[in-house]
Amino acid sequence: MLYLIGLGLGDAKDISVRGLEVVKKAKSVFLEAYTSILSVDKLALEELYGREVILADRELVEQQADIILQDAKSEDVAFLVVGDPFGATTHTDLVIRAREQNIPYKVLHNASILNAVGCCGLQLYNYGETVSIVFWTDDWKPDSFYDKIAANRKRGLHTLCLLDIKVKEQSVENLMRGRKIYEPPRYMTVSEAVKQLLEVPKLRNLNKEEAAYDETTLAVGLARIGSNEQQVVFGTMKSLLSHDLGPPLHSLVVPGEMHFLEKEMLYRFAVDINTDET
Amino acid sequence: MLYLIGLGLGDAKDISVRGLEVVKKAKSVFLEAYTSILSVDKLALEELYGREVILADRELVEQQADIILQDAKSEDVAFLVVGDPFGATTHTDLVIRAREQNIPYKVLHNASILNAVGCCGLQLYNYGETVSIVFWTDDWKPDSFYDKIAANRKRGLHTLCLLDIKVKEQSVENLMRGRKIYEPPRYMTVSEAVKQLLEVPKLRNLNKEEAAYDETTLAVGLARIGSNEQQVVFGTMKSLLSHDLGPPLHSLVVPGEMHFLEKEMLYRFAVDINTDET
Repeated sequence: MLYLIGLGLGDAKDISVRGLEVVKKAKSVFLEAYTSILSVDKLALEELYGREVILADRELVEQQADIILQDAKSEDVAFLVVGDPFGATTHTDLVIRAREQNIPYKVLHNASILNAVGCCGLQLYNYGETVSIVFWTDDWKPDSFYDKIAANRKRGLHTLCLLDIKVKEQSVENLMRGRKIYEPPRYMTVSEAVKQLLEVPKLRNLNKEEAAYDETTLAVGLARIGSNEQQVVFGTMKSLLSHDLGPPLHSLVVPGEMHFLEKEMLYRFAVDINTDET
Repeated sequence: MLYLIGLGLGDAKDISVRGLEVVKKAKSVFLEAYTSILSVDKLALEELYGREVILADRELVEQQADIILQDAKSEDVAFLVVGDPFGATTHTDLVIRAREQNIPYKVLHNASILNAVGCCGLQLYNYGETVSIVFWTDDWKPDSFYDKIAANRKRGLHTLCLLDIKVKEQSVENLMRGRKIYEPPRYMTVSEAVKQLLEVPKLRNLNKEEAAYDETTLAVGLARIGSNEQQVVFGTMKSLLSHDLGPPLHSLVVPGEMHFLEKEMLYRFAVDINTDET
């Protein structure tokens, strides 16, 4: 049996009691390590589990999927995923391969940023489509997130923005020379995300009335959600530009219409708003 | 400290290792029992926890919130919520009261249907706004879900439909006579939900071209997601009308545009579709 086990967000002990039982008994335990990061490291997991954990980066999963699956035919294999196995990024490919080979699989769900973002006070059923913000380069500035945020806001809906993670990236030179030397990991901050968000209306020459938002628009910056070092700030985009939320992971929410109870929760996290006026 | 602890969806052991530690040590443990149901009962939880669990229905929480919070001032109180504490329904009110009284609180997140629905194969970031379908009566047929599904589909987005739960409802007669006699709980089935969905275009006199969907539209019925008895079916709305998905909880997804990988996963659950044609 192939077990896809969600680890939750902040702590080694966020794994479920059931998940831990599977991990302790499985033949082998892989930790997916290319689409997200856990705020605890592999050693903390190994200590809790009392056994070795194999880090599975993209190369390993792509090249050795068959080895992972081979074992799962006759024995239990645990494939650990930060958050929920079908969270912000998915492991559909591994599941599809398992199915093609008639290998049974089971998913143990856990929290992901998609529901944990509820902690800021904005109701989860008032969110529209989720968007991803990727690091811009000098000549590549994808901005489809703008239209989605605009469409959500038009309907009064909040937008969760998932911020880019660059792990095991190669420089163009190293890539061309076939050298497996990787750049240090990069995690987009709320400040960097807001900067890109604010550039889009300028690049598109939209005036203040046309733009879906501007630097006076209120937004929510979130960092390390689910961990003990969780941080939430609520303020204008302008203030978020200069607010340091510390280590990764960061996420950003651009609210739509805010209801009374939502505001009451949010204003607790306010950084540059006079909350008496609301 | 007030701990809001998510229990996940399907099994007593879906609580996190950290959550279980808190529950074992807390002064008192409440189980929220009015916005959802767990597929395991209170006894199974008490057995796992090795202690008593107090069922907190709406009355208890509303009337005794202060008692719950009073304890949390000096000791640890655990408030257990099926799914995620900020999942489909929220417990914002309790949190706001805690904050007003300067009582520290911590949230231990867990899976909710909002991310576990990923198991059907439709990518979570391709969902639009979530809708709620409530039981219609003869003279009360709220249908705002229709416009939201239509708006999502127009943008190619999937819609998760959360289906109504009626727990501790009183008949009009008992309510008027002040008798605390409650009707048996009711949980909307996928079949009942689809029936209401299909009635809206008729009630609004929309023709086939105008309607956002009709009985040939493909949809996904889900039951008991996260439990070992989980069931997923993919078929036309017409076929879902007569498909029995068994005991609660049920949910429904109305897909928008489906991508190749999404289809590949979904067709595994097909009931009335020739999957060779795709």
